[in-house]
Amino acid sequence: MSTGSVRYELLKICPHTGARRGRLHTPHGTVETPFFMPVGTQGSVKTVGSEDVEALGFQQVLSNTYHLSLRPGSKLVEQLGGLHHFMSWNGAILTDSGGYQVMSLSDSRTIDDTGVKFKSHLDGSVQFLSPERSIQIQGELGVDISMSLDECPPYPCTREEAAEAMRRTHLWAPRNLAARREGQAVFGIVQGGVHMDLRTESAEFIASLPFDGIAIGGVSVGEPSEMQYPVVTHTAKLLPQDKARYLMGVGHPKDILHAVAAGIDMFDCVLPTRMARHHALYTLDGRVNALGKRWADHDGPFDEASVFPQTQRYSAAYIRHLFKAGEPLGARLATLHNLAFYARLMAEIREAITQETWPQLLERYARA
Amino acid sequence: MSTGSVRYELLKICPHTGARRGRLHTPHGTVETPFFMPVGTQGSVKTVGSEDVEALGFQQVLSNTYHLSLRPGSKLVEQLGGLHHFMSWNGAILTDSGGYQVMSLSDSRTIDDTGVKFKSHLDGSVQFLSPERSIQIQGELGVDISMSLDECPPYPCTREEAAEAMRRTHLWAPRNLAARREGQAVFGIVQGGVHMDLRTESAEFIASLPFDGIAIGGVSVGEPSEMQYPVVTHTAKLLPQDKARYLMGVGHPKDILHAVAAGIDMFDCVLPTRMARHHALYTLDGRVNALGKRWADHDGPFDEASVFPQTQRYSAAYIRHLFKAGEPLGARLATLHNLAFYARLMAEIREAITQETWPQLLERYARA
Repeated sequence: MSTGSVRYELLKICPHTGARRGRLHTPHGTVETPFFMPVGTQGSVKTVGSEDVEALGFQQVLSNTYHLSLRPGSKLVEQLGGLHHFMSWNGAILTDSGGYQVMSLSDSRTIDDTGVKFKSHLDGSVQFLSPERSIQIQGELGVDISMSLDECPPYPCTREEAAEAMRRTHLWAPRNLAARREGQAVFGIVQGGVHMDLRTESAEFIASLPFDGIAIGGVSVGEPSEMQYPVVTHTAKLLPQDKARYLMGVGHPKDILHAVAAGIDMFDCVLPTRMARHHALYTLDGRVNALGKRWADHDGPFDEASVFPQTQRYSAAYIRHLFKAGEPLGARLATLHNLAFYARLMAEIREAITQETWPQLLERYARA
Repeated sequence: MSTGSVRYELLKICPHTGARRGRLHTPHGTVETPFFMPVGTQGSVKTVGSEDVEALGFQQVLSNTYHLSLRPGSKLVEQLGGLHHFMSWNGAILTDSGGYQVMSLSDSRTIDDTGVKFKSHLDGSVQFLSPERSIQIQGELGVDISMSLDECPPYPCTREEAAEAMRRTHLWAPRNLAARREGQAVFGIVQGGVHMDLRTESAEFIASLPFDGIAIGGVSVGEPSEMQYPVVTHTAKLLPQDKARYLMGVGHPKDILHAVAAGIDMFDCVLPTRMARHHALYTLDGRVNALGKRWADHDGPFDEASVFPQTQRYSAAYIRHLFKAGEPLGARLATLHNLAFYARLMAEIREAITQETWPQLLERYARA
């Protein structure tokens, strides 16, 4: 049994798939599931403000324990009223634990069962992250959902490395829970790499603990979708129906469609925002390069299905010009466009589950 | 007599000063004067969209003939429906003639009475700008107000250089007018450097031609305000009451206050937008550095008098964090803050003329 302030409510299961339509009740509002969280690593979804994220229809964002603890510091954020107030975001916030960034961004890290010692990528100062410390930082940030510190092995890795990362993840799981503040909601994370027996063991163990939701980690770390899809399908089935299921770091529209069908409720990914800054725009016909000559005199939007007023008012020709001219507004409009694409994808996913029109949805996004 | 589609309407003269309250009627709406134009050099006010400029309350923006003619090209803009449609801006647009940018940005320029030959700063291609060509480009862009091609001497320059630039400006003035499309409104430009007799000669000559408005050029090219203020005061007095008066490239809030009192109606300047990108924010207590330690835990706005909702919702501590963290949202929020400061300054200037409270206004902005 969980003790946190977050609760998942199942509304309906898609008759065509295992897709779930539900609600996540958080201290900062109810979030309709399945949903996607824009990534605001440093307390800001790159190039857009909280009013934009609201206008796009998102109800929850993701931010980053590692980055915020180094700068501006979680104590300062707490003193300033918490991360919601700091970034003026009225919706829900989930933070990752910092473990993934410690392993990918910091220097000279050493990991053992106590935690990870590492050097800050900002100033080289020596830092220590443990399950207790990660949960404490996330408590200071005051977020709605804290993620457990786990060990996420890279892909490819040996079975032994995947098993060892799982062992440590399981060792740390209860320590994450024990470090909670009163009411602090904490999600557990299933590891096990691409090995189905390890995934089974991990899912069963994590599901046995009183987490407020369960994430599938170690997917979207470089493996091809032929490896990712079976892991997601296999693992999702093992998770309890009464808790939210979060697939970390995923992904492409087609990956999200697959994972929702497998029973996943929550997603985050840097793709829509990062791709936008590299002038790659999502459309129903696939991702297009805004610099392409075909857009030079195109007076309509990149995607005829675009519905967001702030991007609808600008033509592809104008956005291409902004990128060509090095105007910062280009990245912003492209970010709004891509986030609007993801927001609409998730809204249509929810609608397709409710209306039982999943096959039509797959057809609509077949080229996306 | 002018033939263009722009008309100035004088409403009231301030009893304390020569300040004028009026209206500029343009094909894209009526603009309350005195007003400030945000600078959108390449068809975009840096970091903000047209919906933001609208929300800030601006009714007219400035864009740049030189930049737009090189990229994306005025023919393409015309084909796409004109600059208003291209940048999705429903208010009025004034373009500068390109002369200033040719002299400051291009390579290997040669100027004679026919025009300026120069190499594009983008690709080194040889280009030619003449009064006829500049007015043609601005006609293709479809702007509300086209500026005459003039010669703007740098500061400092000799009296002979100032006189020669004025001579060429006067030679070109009728050629600018002769090149107009039907209904194209063109403003003339007074030159003459810091020499009052030349300014008198130039103001009288330019005022004798059928321009739709008159600008004072060659101010704000590096001269100190001790030189700028007398030129503005002297020249503004010589201009006809029935045409709008535009002081090009000005300026600091105190410069605007001075110039309005001298009878100027229109301003443009890169300061609020450029300073914002260098984390310098306008407040009633002067321009402040957002990186300063004093803001690290400041949960309020930089300026207590701030009125714009999109920037009011963010604290100085947050905006400082964004700059420190290299987040692109920092420049955007700072730009919105500074433009909101300028929009409010102009609104309060108009109000002070109407309400006859100019002395109180000067007191309010004494430290700005």
